[in-house]
Amino acid sequence: MVTEKLLKQIDFIKEIDKIKYIQRRTKLFNSDRQENDAEHSWHLAMMAIVLSEHSDYEIDLLKVIKMVLIHDIVEIDAGDTFIYDQNKNHENTEEELKAAQRIFGILPKEQAEDFIKIWIEFEEGISNEAKFARSMDRLEPLLQNTSNDGGTWKEFGVKYQTVYDKKKVIKNGSKKLWKFAENLINDSVQKGILKK
Amino acid sequence: MVTEKLLKQIDFIKEIDKIKYIQRRTKLFNSDRQENDAEHSWHLAMMAIVLSEHSDYEIDLLKVIKMVLIHDIVEIDAGDTFIYDQNKNHENTEEELKAAQRIFGILPKEQAEDFIKIWIEFEEGISNEAKFARSMDRLEPLLQNTSNDGGTWKEFGVKYQTVYDKKKVIKNGSKKLWKFAENLINDSVQKGILKK
Repeated sequence: MVTEKLLKQIDFIKEIDKIKYIQRRTKLFNSDRQENDAEHSWHLAMMAIVLSEHSDYEIDLLKVIKMVLIHDIVEIDAGDTFIYDQNKNHENTEEELKAAQRIFGILPKEQAEDFIKIWIEFEEGISNEAKFARSMDRLEPLLQNTSNDGGTWKEFGVKYQTVYDKKKVIKNGSKKLWKFAENLINDSVQKGILKK
Repeated sequence: MVTEKLLKQIDFIKEIDKIKYIQRRTKLFNSDRQENDAEHSWHLAMMAIVLSEHSDYEIDLLKVIKMVLIHDIVEIDAGDTFIYDQNKNHENTEEELKAAQRIFGILPKEQAEDFIKIWIEFEEGISNEAKFARSMDRLEPLLQNTSNDGGTWKEFGVKYQTVYDKKKVIKNGSKKLWKFAENLINDSVQKGILKK
């Protein structure tokens, strides 16, 4: 009754435990402790549920949640790349695709293909679901940095225009959330925690 | 354009960051580090997605995911109670209901009511979705303890029969997963990491 298929699924469930060790640069809210990828992914899924009504497009919420829950699993092999790193491309690397194939490939074939497809869809950022999922991914660290007195912006000397350009992705998913985010960014300049 | 409603949602998103500080007794896989509630909830959501085909009943997967993502948020106020604690009732406490009302109550009214309803449904464990969600909640620490040389069973001297009785909840969601879990429990006795 315990099938080969189930055993593969259990192996995958054990393997992905490793994202709990992948540290991001951003810190928890009002905190000095860095966030890890599992915590980050949980938070994005919660945000997607809470904020879904603000999506500019009709979205399949279950798909959005799948996207945000799995989007960082590739970092088990490829590591976290800081969004403001000027030397390393943040996304769509060969390394990440290899990681997706190895890690999702632990699953039974059909399921593996499904996960890889959803991960690629998120990375491409074209579908309505990917647009909204990516808004969540940009919004969380914005909330964190503004609650952490500038957080990684201050720590790494990131300037207003760079932040603004990176965060503009939010607009692709929701004009309302972008308005909110834009206000936060501008307030941060006013407060002196983000430099023009 | 930035509404009162959105501001309440953002307040809630900030408040729930606190579950990242709630430590469980169980440790990560092959590890000495305790798991926190955000990591645990992320893992259960991933398990629900990967294992949903093994549910004995038709389930609304989105609802199951919502349940497991939010089920421990009440612990921000009520704290984590160890499942094998003999002095304290593990579930459905007055304290947890109060916590649900305060924390979900930060959300706009309709959304707050919806979250409280889903949380109560999970706690009651009667609906198909709640049964499957609760199977996930019992299965994860079983996988952890068996990968951690007995983990909390050894640490707190928990015996076979107690473990068996607590884990039997898995059967309510999936006979197949219960068969797998039962084998794991029996193997643990064979290996000497769980005492009869």
